[in-house]
Amino acid sequence: MGIRFKDLKNCSVFSTLTKLAETPFDLTDSKNMNIDRVKEYQVTGAGFKLYYSTQRVDEDVLNCLQTVAEESGLVKQFCAMKSGAVINRIEGFQSENRQVLHTAVRDVFSKNACEPAATAQAEVELEKLKKFLSDLKGGKIVNGEGDSFTTMVQVGIGGSDLGPRSVYEALKAFQLRDRKVYFISNVDPDDAEEVLRQVDIKRTLFNIVSKSGTTLETLTNEKLIRNALVVAGLDPREHCIAVTGEGSPMDNPSECRTTFYMYDYIGGRYSGTSMVGLVVLGFALGYEQIVEFLQGACEMDYHAEKANIRKNIPLLMALLGVWNHNFLGFSTVAVLPYSQSLHRFAAHLQQCDMESNGKSVSRKGAQLEINSGPIVWGEPGTNGQHAFYQLLHQGTEVVPAEFIGFLESQYEKDIKVEGTTSQQKLVANLLAQIVALATGKDNDNPNKVFKGNRPNLLLSSKKLTPKTMGALLACYEAKIVFQGFLWDINSFDQEGVQLGKVLASRFLVEMVESGAGSTGWESQLLKEVISAES
Amino acid sequence: MGIRFKDLKNCSVFSTLTKLAETPFDLTDSKNMNIDRVKEYQVTGAGFKLYYSTQRVDEDVLNCLQTVAEESGLVKQFCAMKSGAVINRIEGFQSENRQVLHTAVRDVFSKNACEPAATAQAEVELEKLKKFLSDLKGGKIVNGEGDSFTTMVQVGIGGSDLGPRSVYEALKAFQLRDRKVYFISNVDPDDAEEVLRQVDIKRTLFNIVSKSGTTLETLTNEKLIRNALVVAGLDPREHCIAVTGEGSPMDNPSECRTTFYMYDYIGGRYSGTSMVGLVVLGFALGYEQIVEFLQGACEMDYHAEKANIRKNIPLLMALLGVWNHNFLGFSTVAVLPYSQSLHRFAAHLQQCDMESNGKSVSRKGAQLEINSGPIVWGEPGTNGQHAFYQLLHQGTEVVPAEFIGFLESQYEKDIKVEGTTSQQKLVANLLAQIVALATGKDNDNPNKVFKGNRPNLLLSSKKLTPKTMGALLACYEAKIVFQGFLWDINSFDQEGVQLGKVLASRFLVEMVESGAGSTGWESQLLKEVISAES
Repeated sequence: MGIRFKDLKNCSVFSTLTKLAETPFDLTDSKNMNIDRVKEYQVTGAGFKLYYSTQRVDEDVLNCLQTVAEESGLVKQFCAMKSGAVINRIEGFQSENRQVLHTAVRDVFSKNACEPAATAQAEVELEKLKKFLSDLKGGKIVNGEGDSFTTMVQVGIGGSDLGPRSVYEALKAFQLRDRKVYFISNVDPDDAEEVLRQVDIKRTLFNIVSKSGTTLETLTNEKLIRNALVVAGLDPREHCIAVTGEGSPMDNPSECRTTFYMYDYIGGRYSGTSMVGLVVLGFALGYEQIVEFLQGACEMDYHAEKANIRKNIPLLMALLGVWNHNFLGFSTVAVLPYSQSLHRFAAHLQQCDMESNGKSVSRKGAQLEINSGPIVWGEPGTNGQHAFYQLLHQGTEVVPAEFIGFLESQYEKDIKVEGTTSQQKLVANLLAQIVALATGKDNDNPNKVFKGNRPNLLLSSKKLTPKTMGALLACYEAKIVFQGFLWDINSFDQEGVQLGKVLASRFLVEMVESGAGSTGWESQLLKEVISAES
Repeated sequence: MGIRFKDLKNCSVFSTLTKLAETPFDLTDSKNMNIDRVKEYQVTGAGFKLYYSTQRVDEDVLNCLQTVAEESGLVKQFCAMKSGAVINRIEGFQSENRQVLHTAVRDVFSKNACEPAATAQAEVELEKLKKFLSDLKGGKIVNGEGDSFTTMVQVGIGGSDLGPRSVYEALKAFQLRDRKVYFISNVDPDDAEEVLRQVDIKRTLFNIVSKSGTTLETLTNEKLIRNALVVAGLDPREHCIAVTGEGSPMDNPSECRTTFYMYDYIGGRYSGTSMVGLVVLGFALGYEQIVEFLQGACEMDYHAEKANIRKNIPLLMALLGVWNHNFLGFSTVAVLPYSQSLHRFAAHLQQCDMESNGKSVSRKGAQLEINSGPIVWGEPGTNGQHAFYQLLHQGTEVVPAEFIGFLESQYEKDIKVEGTTSQQKLVANLLAQIVALATGKDNDNPNKVFKGNRPNLLLSSKKLTPKTMGALLACYEAKIVFQGFLWDINSFDQEGVQLGKVLASRFLVEMVESGAGSTGWESQLLKEVISAES
């Protein structure tokens, strides 16, 4: 990187922020909340507006957060990432040592891409995909009987599942009429069987997705599927395509009719706009819609380069998150979309955020002195209102909330009931929660008291479309990356998943050998569990 | 209740436990973990085994927790609840003042029900349901053209959605061949449209579920559906049934062909075994299976009456949870089922737990001195391993984990790949996570160090069936109720949802009147949001 930047702990204003956090802005004081605050505390960009007047911040805090952003060089590091800096590394220790270029695959709308080599590779794959989709539509790619493929089943796990699945669910309203999409992810054999029972296997393409081509769950499910194809009297190669790294064990033309590539500079959890997401989304929505999706993401990536935190949505969200987490001390953040189609978005963010920033070691290999990533969770409203919002309003745990909302429905099938549409009711409920959490309300009955001062924000757009979905995805990716920079961690590796893999292999061996000769409490646990006849 | 019990804070061992929590049992010390600990730290009951050797507890802690259980009269209060005590109340203040009898609806397997009156009411509804299902099957209940109903859409939100939906998903493998089930919950109009696009409306029964008969989202979606039925040239009454309180606005024979009742002594989030869950589950699975489901729940309810915490699964889970939350200081608990079919179970628990125990006021109306309910979240493994487990293993936030596992798959469609079945791989991964989280592992590379001491437990059974699903549901209900007793809160009301309802109505009025005359920052926020053309 050349220049060194400060981490959060070493920023000049760290102690000032710590001090300010002792008496944070009081959202319950009616003198504090006014029209000007609402007008001023908002940011516009890439099709979204961020409203943050219901955060516990004032000018002093925001000015300090601006200083943090500058001293830790957040935007400069972000631009360096986009330009191909090798930031997936731990200094002085063995690490992945890679570039981080998920932004490059959508940087295809100008002549001056930030990292032309990666963007050029993305463009090759995009062209392949365009032709593939056109051949599917035009009847050049068909099954053994000459029929078109109507269904795609994506087989992948983690980043090869959560991002694509959550975006697909979000955009189902835009799906082509004759297309259906399913996902198989879990090594639980019931997951594959549940899907296989629903599809017409003769008309189904299986899209096997694994960057390394060695993912246990995915390879196992691939075998299950190839077995099912053979049982159905079909040629597995005709029904399988793959998305994987060039030259991986899965990159095998004798097994798959087409292979799309992704590259090692794209982490699984950031791969939604690479072929990992685009193949299945293209199948479902058509090529034009995925271009829109990329465009939204690309716009947000450029919006995220603004230096002023009050003009940069993901940067401000990152800093407000750090204020809530590191200074006000809240362990979690709830993502609450008021759109049922975003019902898997929080699950995607759990991976993207917690796998990126759930770390304890700095980029120099030192133990962190402050907490890194929070726990991310959430469900759509209004459903959540009838579930866990009780705790949000009156619990002893305070949960900062990130609301996501849209003015218009997707299907545009809405009717007025008692004078208002369902969409109006949805938006009214969303705004009501924002106000209630922030301001609270007193009551003579202690059980009906709302203490308020629950910080929240609203990320809002006109309508959830392929384009705004791309921007939303990129917004959270950028937020997560900014926070990783602040905590001085490598947000792009996942060493924490390795130990479980090793131990699982050991247990599998013990199972096959019936535990012969194995001792120790772990083996005892295995014996107890697998012999239970409860 | 008659007798007074101590709350957690006032138990004689509270300070001892606080002291013990300073040096909790070290799971990373290989001298600590041994075969005897595994053998001893397990509990059997109602078809399940609880393994808890990977909790940070020793004999001293467990003995103190036993004392807590006794001094706070947990089992006595539980039995009083089952016998009809009026425990949904806040002393000295206006409150719901009701019995809490979700256990009564499954207490139908002996002649000595704990609360005979409520059980008698449940039996009447069960008989009605049995006849209804038989008439559906026998062709007595048909659509206007004399065809059978093949699809049921449950329209409900919160407790009328999450419990039934999560159980339905869990038991889909047992579904009758010719039946399909969908759910509509969100007031987001896209939720209903997404379902309506998938069903054959002529063959669909809509089951409208609302205890009060006044739930905004449900009534709005009911109107949407009745409208769709009329548009399709069908008689809405022929296609609608209801589950509601007797005499509620929805209890109207001119609008619904059949109405099943639930009673005010069953809270929405505890209503999975009442008609709220049973009608849709009976439609999907058949009557015999729901009897099994009830039997599992009933067995767990009786198992939960054991006084010895080491013989009582939900009681011990409740106390271990309190140890982790109040003494070790962890804000959240992750529920991690290793069964894809339990993919909505954590969402159900979010309501059941957080709406029950996300409170700040005692049953006497006093502010709590210690924290009540934690934040509950989770996704199925192995999927989660490829998502947020990085943070569980190496993050700065420690998350106590509750694993749920089964030895056998549901569909029994499994094949061996490289010598082991998928189900074996699933179980091996589950056990590997338990060990990895507990013991950790050192490494010269700081980025590959696992600190361990992440407390977790395993709730395990042979197979997820209607019966074990009933027991699992009841186990968590009992755990939640025990914890509520410990914190001395009313786990059965939900005053925290009221303020949002009031404010939403106000915003709706402003929307219709175009904000005429309204002032203040809330109105400004509304104006900004609904006028945004970003």
